[in-house]
Amino acid sequence: MKGYKKFYVDGSKKIDIDKFVTSEKIDKKEKEKYIAETEKNQLKIAELQDKLYADGREGLIIVLQAMDAAGKDSTVKNVMSGINPQGVNVYSFKAPSSAEIAHDFLWRIESCVPERGKISIFNRSQYEDVLVVKVHDMYKNYKMPERCTKKKKDEFFSERYEDILNYEKYLYHNGYRIIKIFLNVSKDEQKKRFLERIDRPEKNWKFSSSDIKERALWDEYHKAYQDAINATSSKNTPWYVLPADQKWFTRYLVSEIIKDTLRDMDPKYPDVSDEQKANLAGCKVQLESEGKK
Amino acid sequence: MKGYKKFYVDGSKKIDIDKFVTSEKIDKKEKEKYIAETEKNQLKIAELQDKLYADGREGLIIVLQAMDAAGKDSTVKNVMSGINPQGVNVYSFKAPSSAEIAHDFLWRIESCVPERGKISIFNRSQYEDVLVVKVHDMYKNYKMPERCTKKKKDEFFSERYEDILNYEKYLYHNGYRIIKIFLNVSKDEQKKRFLERIDRPEKNWKFSSSDIKERALWDEYHKAYQDAINATSSKNTPWYVLPADQKWFTRYLVSEIIKDTLRDMDPKYPDVSDEQKANLAGCKVQLESEGKK
Repeated sequence: MKGYKKFYVDGSKKIDIDKFVTSEKIDKKEKEKYIAETEKNQLKIAELQDKLYADGREGLIIVLQAMDAAGKDSTVKNVMSGINPQGVNVYSFKAPSSAEIAHDFLWRIESCVPERGKISIFNRSQYEDVLVVKVHDMYKNYKMPERCTKKKKDEFFSERYEDILNYEKYLYHNGYRIIKIFLNVSKDEQKKRFLERIDRPEKNWKFSSSDIKERALWDEYHKAYQDAINATSSKNTPWYVLPADQKWFTRYLVSEIIKDTLRDMDPKYPDVSDEQKANLAGCKVQLESEGKK
Repeated sequence: MKGYKKFYVDGSKKIDIDKFVTSEKIDKKEKEKYIAETEKNQLKIAELQDKLYADGREGLIIVLQAMDAAGKDSTVKNVMSGINPQGVNVYSFKAPSSAEIAHDFLWRIESCVPERGKISIFNRSQYEDVLVVKVHDMYKNYKMPERCTKKKKDEFFSERYEDILNYEKYLYHNGYRIIKIFLNVSKDEQKKRFLERIDRPEKNWKFSSSDIKERALWDEYHKAYQDAINATSSKNTPWYVLPADQKWFTRYLVSEIIKDTLRDMDPKYPDVSDEQKANLAGCKVQLESEGKK
């Protein structure tokens, strides 16, 4: 079966985002195999997450970024649905609130970093501040001192990339893993999915006319993604540029990545010392003797 | 009058903390002058803070660190008391809670970063994580993966210094100024103040027997301060190592630093455009015509 290795970006060399495929040629008969494997992975992820929670030593952050209709929501729903919700939180970062915009841009992100032992899924993330903000030059109108807003665009975003990279390194130093996934959908497939959202009443709520405006900026967004991915990938904070035209294949890849990352984190149920065992045995005796008087 | 320039540390050269004085020879007749000047500065700070709040473009973080009884609380009380409390918050960082210790160490700090336009005063700060945590080797018992806790001590704290420096740079990029003050009290003066806390019933609550234990580690703490200050000072994130044996002089210096920083930030009441002026004039007419019918 096809794996995710060739979609892995660790910063060792610059990538050209257009060289990444948005779908793979896979024999139709194979499709069921991928779906079955994804289901197996879900079970394995749930098992590992239980250990992660009990262990409480390491936290996991999964960042999902994509153009509209690439399948962020359905990926979260599908891949993570077997998991105990007590150990996982999903945060969707939309346009910032007035309190958020009055703070440094990582303020709302940092408040959603999980306790160690837990998983946070970021549906959009800190990267919006170098994507939509870059494509639309939004920072120029921010209420910030001129030393920030009057800066050259390149310099402003170079600093942001560096700040994000440093922030993610810091999280790694502090016992977190970060998986960053770009769901790489093709422009044709987006069109198809938009039309479906317009044609099917139960999907209408997912579509807004502004989505068409953003679609017109496809190339600018792809350039911004490429720059952001090149500037913020490292061995400890890698990106995965995953083909997103075949949902079942994307889900399989995402489930593989999460499973392998959790395995590498190697969470363990806490050791029980001899003293604790003796204590547990004592408690058992006490419980069993209840009402025997 | 004596200023704070010689206590300013911007990272351009390494400092030896023992070379910094804890008091200055100042003629007794001069003392009143310093007190009068501090009061003038308070008024000026209040005036500038009002503009800062109205402007809303830049935020200010004041970090206060010191050995026990060096005067952190009284400095806050004295220097900042003229200010509108709506624009200022003071946060005292004590031993971390269980939720705080389960997160990355800047998690509790970041949640106290002010909106731009406001001031946050940190009574103790992120630096506790490279001071008390270093002196007592606390990190070794943290619930973190072994790649963190089994690291060599030097490496662990080098990373922390770098993380703090990067974090403060990031805040500067995002429209914040940071003033970091170490109140440099002498061991003799601490003894004198501890005895006063023990002898005067209304000061008893400020003393704990553990303060004596920390005092015994004076040299270790001073070394940790020196390392932290050397590793995290920069032009945009400077430290001030202020003599703290004469409270009135310390207060004067702190008031000078805050005043000068605010002046340099140069906050302005927002411009009122011609259109807005016309609008204001219209509102005035409407208000004055009320009840005239």
